[in-house]
Amino acid sequence: MSETLHRQHKAHLDNLLSAYRSLMAQYDYDSIALYSGHATPHYGDDQMPSFQAFGHFVHWVPLWEAEHSWLVIHPDKRPTLYLYAPNDFWHLPTMLPEEPWVAEFDVQLCTDAITPPLTDNTAIVGDIAALRASGGALANGQANPDALIQALDELRIIKSDYEITCLREANRLAMAGHEAAHAAFAGACCELDIQLAYLAASRQRESHTPYSNIIGMNQHAGVLHYQYYDVSAPKQRYSLLVDAGRRFRGYSADITRTHVGPDAPALFEALINAMHAVKDRLIASLTPGVDFIALHEQMHHELAEVMIDHDLFRGSREAAIAEGITRAFCPHGLGHSLGVQVHDVAGLRTASGEPAPAPENHPALRLTRTLTPGMVITIEPGLYFIPMLLAPLRNTSLPINWTLVDQLMPCGGIRVEDNIVITSDGFHNLTP
Amino acid sequence: MSETLHRQHKAHLDNLLSAYRSLMAQYDYDSIALYSGHATPHYGDDQMPSFQAFGHFVHWVPLWEAEHSWLVIHPDKRPTLYLYAPNDFWHLPTMLPEEPWVAEFDVQLCTDAITPPLTDNTAIVGDIAALRASGGALANGQANPDALIQALDELRIIKSDYEITCLREANRLAMAGHEAAHAAFAGACCELDIQLAYLAASRQRESHTPYSNIIGMNQHAGVLHYQYYDVSAPKQRYSLLVDAGRRFRGYSADITRTHVGPDAPALFEALINAMHAVKDRLIASLTPGVDFIALHEQMHHELAEVMIDHDLFRGSREAAIAEGITRAFCPHGLGHSLGVQVHDVAGLRTASGEPAPAPENHPALRLTRTLTPGMVITIEPGLYFIPMLLAPLRNTSLPINWTLVDQLMPCGGIRVEDNIVITSDGFHNLTP
Repeated sequence: MSETLHRQHKAHLDNLLSAYRSLMAQYDYDSIALYSGHATPHYGDDQMPSFQAFGHFVHWVPLWEAEHSWLVIHPDKRPTLYLYAPNDFWHLPTMLPEEPWVAEFDVQLCTDAITPPLTDNTAIVGDIAALRASGGALANGQANPDALIQALDELRIIKSDYEITCLREANRLAMAGHEAAHAAFAGACCELDIQLAYLAASRQRESHTPYSNIIGMNQHAGVLHYQYYDVSAPKQRYSLLVDAGRRFRGYSADITRTHVGPDAPALFEALINAMHAVKDRLIASLTPGVDFIALHEQMHHELAEVMIDHDLFRGSREAAIAEGITRAFCPHGLGHSLGVQVHDVAGLRTASGEPAPAPENHPALRLTRTLTPGMVITIEPGLYFIPMLLAPLRNTSLPINWTLVDQLMPCGGIRVEDNIVITSDGFHNLTP
Repeated sequence: MSETLHRQHKAHLDNLLSAYRSLMAQYDYDSIALYSGHATPHYGDDQMPSFQAFGHFVHWVPLWEAEHSWLVIHPDKRPTLYLYAPNDFWHLPTMLPEEPWVAEFDVQLCTDAITPPLTDNTAIVGDIAALRASGGALANGQANPDALIQALDELRIIKSDYEITCLREANRLAMAGHEAAHAAFAGACCELDIQLAYLAASRQRESHTPYSNIIGMNQHAGVLHYQYYDVSAPKQRYSLLVDAGRRFRGYSADITRTHVGPDAPALFEALINAMHAVKDRLIASLTPGVDFIALHEQMHHELAEVMIDHDLFRGSREAAIAEGITRAFCPHGLGHSLGVQVHDVAGLRTASGEPAPAPENHPALRLTRTLTPGMVITIEPGLYFIPMLLAPLRNTSLPINWTLVDQLMPCGGIRVEDNIVITSDGFHNLTP
């Protein structure tokens, strides 16, 4: 992989440089200075929270933990990478990897947190407020100009071969974690130990995951962004939902699997299988030109079918959708763009840059674009039994089979999620 | 433990309330409003870094992860706890524990991030800049008044029985982690797997540790705040340094152990034993009235003895200190105050509130106070082989036994650290 990856990285950088230079000419900037950002200690303390470098910086430089660093793009010479590398016996010094991409930059190792030379016509992109708060000097330059930021975001929608290779490798590593998590669940582990098994098998620490892994057993599987890891296992084991990722050179995998436990009703396993089939049918329809809002609505048609087929709903598909039933059973969006951020930028814009907000009925949808080759997205249909959302439906005469729903409540819910690249004539599934 | 803990917690709160009320009378405040703080997403992203609530908030309320919450102390009624508890199906709702301390507060669960009623004479204590940046309304009140903050910090220096119980329990849990880390090292694990074994045995996730655990093998043991966990084990295993903690109700354990590997010279094991003896002698001298700067200097005398006894230095104890040799082999301080923050507040002040900075020769010392009963401190002597600090000494004629030092370089260094409470007539060691 290594040689291909490095060749692809060079091509990726060549293309980025060309695109940035076009934007500099279009908007009349002398240079574009990308600030990596830096962590700020917990308030009143000297301990640091976790950190990730700014997405536009990582789009070029695979050092996604780099703090106090800059990449400056010029119209007529190699980009300059000012990499913060303090001369410090408290920490292991920052080392440049021995990789070919380094030669694409003019690298300056900086023992202090510096601000690079800027002109009045430099566009400065990044966390300027943090920079100023830390005493960074910014006498010149234009901070985060809207039109430029929007154009840079747009460059991140279509992934290069390099980025797709990174996302595929992130998926491969994450899947090893998912297999270990499944085995730990079979071994009756608690959520904490399932998470630790996931981390061990995917070879990463929690603070390096691209998002906070969701490891939810039983009703926790129905808490969409469940935020804890219980330290003891429940007596009854109905279900396990694992939504967990991995970074590779800054690029994020975002995979979800739901497993059936020994105490679940047989219907729950049938529903997991049905949701895999839903996911696979939705993926099979991916191709350039597909409107993602329409696909999200297609998911609701599929959910209605699943509910009817499994006797959860005794009305028509149309009624299940029109009455908002499928939305109560799946309140989140079908998917989102994926890249150096797990919810990647520019999902709610059109290709021509117009705002394209989520539809009123589907406020949690993070992607409203028409699919084009090179986009990488998640497809993550779900079906949940969330007390807060089902309560209002219980007071209606809608033909929901509450007996079955109540049997499923202890299972929490189901989500299955793959990561997909759109190709010129269809798709590739990056999730093994 | 539970009943004692809850009784102690009530007494702790009673004393705090009395102390806060005295300060309100002294400085003429109507109320003191403590803001817990909140996390801010990574720049340009929707993902959150790790978070810990503000120390003065946690000094009262054991919910050290509480965001967007307030505790308001009044002169004439129970403190009001405004606990942020959004009505939200995305996360597991905030639940109050069923513990007696809850009855000491007037608790208001808030579905929105609110600002409590404030008067012009309310002292607002906490991360005001973050509050304003998130749109918090602060029409009234006095933000973080210096004299009050200093007085509140001072209240945290002397630990109550409740706090000591929490710190002891944190130590007990952390020590289980240390034992598992030692076993994992014996089993030839790499740093990542040693860290995961530590987390599993101490029953916690990485983002809940009070500081970033240091798990350093070989030369990494000589990097004082070594920040990585290697994912593969080195061929030669000389040493392992584990500096790792645990929170209990917000209170931090901070324990260090150094282990000898199969490939280390025998001298390294002898030095580890000698450093344990140094630690234990320094601890044995702890009693009220001890000047911590003098004790830090005593550590350097002890280090000089160790270096001479083990033939690392062939000069006098006085020369080893006067020439800065012991400081090159141990560049950090002897210890620090420990509480709801691992480097607890007010270490560099006198009891009467005067600044007491670290001595010029010992700039990394975090505690310069005279010890008094109830203080909880770390005692953490170290002896390291740090290339950056030894390089200047190599060009001198100082009688350092470079042959032995060079044999030890691959071992990185040694640190051993316990957590100690000062009692009325001596000390108790909280580290099992």
